Amino acid sequence: MLNKLREKIITEAQVFGEIVKIDHFLNHQIDTQLLDEVGVDIAKEFPNATKILTIETSGIAFASSVARTLDYLPLVFAKKVESSITTGEYYLSKTYSFTKKREYSVRVDKRFISENDKVLIVDDFLANGEAASSLIDIVNQAGAEVVGIGIVVEKGFQKGRKVLEEKGHKVYSCSIIERVENGQVYMK
Amino acid sequence: MLNKLREKIITEAQVFGEIVKIDHFLNHQIDTQLLDEVGVDIAKEFPNATKILTIETSGIAFASSVARTLDYLPLVFAKKVESSITTGEYYLSKTYSFTKKREYSVRVDKRFISENDKVLIVDDFLANGEAASSLIDIVNQAGAEVVGIGIVVEKGFQKGRKVLEEKGHKVYSCSIIERVENGQVYMK
Repeated sequence: MLNKLREKIITEAQVFGEIVKIDHFLNHQIDTQLLDEVGVDIAKEFPNATKILTIETSGIAFASSVARTLDYLPLVFAKKVESSITTGEYYLSKTYSFTKKREYSVRVDKRFISENDKVLIVDDFLANGEAASSLIDIVNQAGAEVVGIGIVVEKGFQKGRKVLEEKGHKVYSCSIIERVENGQVYMK
Repeated sequence: MLNKLREKIITEAQVFGEIVKIDHFLNHQIDTQLLDEVGVDIAKEFPNATKILTIETSGIAFASSVARTLDYLPLVFAKKVESSITTGEYYLSKTYSFTKKREYSVRVDKRFISENDKVLIVDDFLANGEAASSLIDIVNQAGAEVVGIGIVVEKGFQKGRKVLEEKGHKVYSCSIIERVENGQVYMK
């Protein structure tokens, strides 16, 4: 748990229904001091990783901060693609965006994950676990090992953690939103 | 000039026509040690910046490294959007992707650039200067100052630098590809 992040969400988040808007320090403008603290906080939970995997766009900065903390591990970011056509050069996995209400695919060049890799998946948000699940699928296709999933902000009232833990994976979140009620955010 | 990057491009780039493929350390997988060296190299040229601006996706990691080096400046990344409809909450600028051969818009929430900001624009590639020009446009709309443009890899045989310098801006690139000939990359 990263207390500074927890406090920042409580005091600074704007709430619209179930939407918690923290784009002024997380996913449009980034507080780069917090970024480095997140990197250290996630890295300490997964010291055995050999590679960091994230998905474009807003996970990239946080994943790079985790990577540098773990003695400059290589960072791979999966790309979102509309089509599910694959050329044989890519690992491809279908996923669904609840925010955008549509299916899309993510892909990673086969050169960038090998069966010897111990992959730490990093993302900014965990909600239903769709994005993380598709990254796990890609790591599995490569015959590599998932050492865990590191998240900046978890929506604890959605099913993401349950989905990932049921697949047998360790999930660590720097902060967990327990519920949102009457425009107020309650943190774990 | 960042010699390590220059050498890495010469020895490791794959060349297809005029395409220089360095996605194994720059824009799909990232060498995070190099990432930090790029951050230091660009930062030293623009010590007066108060904010870093980049565009999703592959500039984000490099921009975050520059931001950290400059005493943890805030980092803003412009988002690519299909539509050019604006709500009044965003600065919006049209641009053109030569790679994807289509127009798109970039937008930045008005809360994230103020007229007092001295903005350093950071991106991974400079080719025709389309993306950088639209970011300059956005900074101008905000009434803020552009202190310069920091680039990881410049394609010196394209017009980007000329376009930006003619607008009166300082351009600094960690590496410049002078030409590509018979599958060989020649660096400045």
